Amino acid sequence: MTPDVLLVSVGGDRREAVPWIEAFGRRLPGLAVAALGDAVDPAAVRYVAAWKHPHGSLAGLPALDAVFSLGAGVDHLLADAALPAGVPVARVVDPDLTNRMSEWVLLQVLAHHRQARRYARQQAEARWADDPHQPAARAVRVGVMGLGVLGIDAATKLAMVGFDVAGWSRSPRDVPGLACYAGTGALDAFLARTDILVVLLPLTPDTEGLLDARLFGKLARGGRLGGPVLVNAGRGGLQREDDILACLDDGTLRAATLDVFTREPLERASPLWRHPGVTVTPHNAALSDPEAIADLIAGQILAHRRGEPLRHLVDRDRAY
Amino acid sequence: MTPDVLLVSVGGDRREAVPWIEAFGRRLPGLAVAALGDAVDPAAVRYVAAWKHPHGSLAGLPALDAVFSLGAGVDHLLADAALPAGVPVARVVDPDLTNRMSEWVLLQVLAHHRQARRYARQQAEARWADDPHQPAARAVRVGVMGLGVLGIDAATKLAMVGFDVAGWSRSPRDVPGLACYAGTGALDAFLARTDILVVLLPLTPDTEGLLDARLFGKLARGGRLGGPVLVNAGRGGLQREDDILACLDDGTLRAATLDVFTREPLERASPLWRHPGVTVTPHNAALSDPEAIADLIAGQILAHRRGEPLRHLVDRDRAY
Ligand SMILES: NC(=O)c1ccc[n+]([C@@H]2O[C@H](COP(=O)([O-])OP(=O)(O)OC[C@H]3O[C@@H](n4cnc5c(N)ncnc54)[C@H](OP(=O)(O)O)[C@@H]3O)[C@@H](O)[C@H]2O)c1
Ligand SMILES: NC(=O)c1ccc[n+]([C@@H]2O[C@H](COP(=O)([O-])OP(=O)(O)OC[C@H]3O[C@@H](n4cnc5c(N)ncnc54)[C@H](OP(=O)(O)O)[C@@H]3O)[C@@H](O)[C@H]2O)c1
Repeated sequence: MTPDVLLVSVGGDRREAVPWIEAFGRRLPGLAVAALGDAVDPAAVRYVAAWKHPHGSLAGLPALDAVFSLGAGVDHLLADAALPAGVPVARVVDPDLTNRMSEWVLLQVLAHHRQARRYARQQAEARWADDPHQPAARAVRVGVMGLGVLGIDAATKLAMVGFDVAGWSRSPRDVPGLACYAGTGALDAFLARTDILVVLLPLTPDTEGLLDARLFGKLARGGRLGGPVLVNAGRGGLQREDDILACLDDGTLRAATLDVFTREPLERASPLWRHPGVTVTPHNAALSDPEAIADLIAGQILAHRRGEPLRHLVDRDRAY
Repeated sequence: MTPDVLLVSVGGDRREAVPWIEAFGRRLPGLAVAALGDAVDPAAVRYVAAWKHPHGSLAGLPALDAVFSLGAGVDHLLADAALPAGVPVARVVDPDLTNRMSEWVLLQVLAHHRQARRYARQQAEARWADDPHQPAARAVRVGVMGLGVLGIDAATKLAMVGFDVAGWSRSPRDVPGLACYAGTGALDAFLARTDILVVLLPLTPDTEGLLDARLFGKLARGGRLGGPVLVNAGRGGLQREDDILACLDDGTLRAATLDVFTREPLERASPLWRHPGVTVTPHNAALSDPEAIADLIAGQILAHRRGEPLRHLVDRDRAY
């Protein structure tokens, strides 16, 4: 009898899949682990673990039991119209990744709040401050879009540092220490009280392009930072990059820190690299440890083979 | 009868004292509030509130009941050998200031941990990362020197972000979540486990010049950041600036963030401004709000006049 197969796809490049195949092989000795495109019996493929697989490549797998994202997001999977309907899709929920994202969010929010760039500029000019005063964190209103695994952790830590924090989600949430807003009906009120907008939303049909000039125009004016600030580590597809640049230039936004972009790597010609109001990080706000991800997915597969339910399943209708 | 007098001194400059005189005047209608140097009866002076007064200028005040520092540190007062012996010296303990210091410490530690300068450099070159991986906070050992009001708050928040945190103090401390080291006998062990050294010590005869090449040489080698990092917001007098520069150049230190300097403002000619391993902030890690300080000191004076004991008194023998 041919053994059950776990198929691995990383951007359609077999070399990128190799370390994952080795990592899964060590953890799942009872399974055959292969790369997408390897010669395997399609009817033996029970599991797929993928990150940005070529669209259409996961059709025609009749015995498929589950598709695992190799990361926290599933937009790369669900964007494939040929992804077999009805097959459960699970994502990675890794406390280590959550913690790393909160490190990045705290760093970026504090850098705006405490004017790290201004002091770097003054240092370059060997200039002691003219006006060294800073607002206290409690005078700065941070709004976190997305109160999921990542958003709640970041928002809670921001509140612990002293910021005045609110959060926005699709369904109503109740998080101690946060002012919680839910749904499109509450979006304007949420934006109107936000000096620093931190985005930790998934990319879905509902959130695609949400971060546009209209939205930026609704952020708080008259806050203590001299203008609203955008911090996006969700997905590039959430943002309209031309709008960000235009809003920085006309003062609708004061600054933006972006870890994600509509096209990655960000092309060398993008004006985002050079705009003085923009801070770029190379989509590494929260890189997960491959060993930890392999542990989590292998654990899911072993549980499934024992007849236990899969965890961290995505609702394919709402797309996250 | 002449009213009791509160004498204010800010660096010996009468103009700098004026806003303080007004702030105290509003809060203490029963007292006469004057600047050092104004014509007042020395025998009527019951209180002094000072920041960097001219040494010797507080002698000859026979009815003096208390001297208040206008900030958290008292080194500027105790360095004056003519400060009347036996007179209680109190400092400001302001939760708002504590919180601001922790904002600054978190920002600076995260900036080193998450390599903010490296990514700024790569952005300037429009370069997506070669190696985007970062150690998790739990793989980075932060050591906080000074576990007083400021040190405990900063250390606790660093631990909450996930760093592996230890603290060092004079007397034994027991702080949940921290590895606590006490006294000179434990200093080497504390340094040997420290990747990022955060200094929140007071300046005293015991701590003066403590941060020298010998001490830097005892910091952990082989940590995840490529070399030990110094972050000092205590006092400039704690550090030997020539040693910092030499240790940065020979690799004993990887980087340093300094908010305080042996001479402030830092002179334009100082190489600290220009060294690529140094981040300078202009002694504004935690500026206190003058209104809050005036509230706290006026509150102490009113309590004292009701016969209640003074709080936040300094031990003049140990000098903090
Ligand atoms: N930059 C990086 O390195 C990096 C790393 C990992 C993840 N990410 C991104 O972060 C995203 C979030 O991760 P997570 O684990 O926190 O996801 P999650 O647990 O699924 O949470 C998603 C949150 O977004 C909210 N949401 C979704 N659609 C919404 C809508 N239309 N309107 C309002 N709120 C909406 C959800 O609302 P409900 O609470 O009502 O469900 C939930 O609070 C991922 O999808 C991924 O794109 C980025
Ligand atoms: N940069 C800024 O903007 C700024 C603002 C405010 C304050 N500061 C500085 O921060 C300093 C600390 O403030 P704080 O309110 O936290 O002071 P604190 O409450 O008096 O705490 C001082 C800490 O240092 C420890 N310590 C003192 N001498 C020591 C020695 N010889 N060896 C080992 N540990 C020693 C003390 O040990 P024990 O616990 O055993 O007593 C205590 O833990 C101030 O003195 C001031 O210089 C800077």
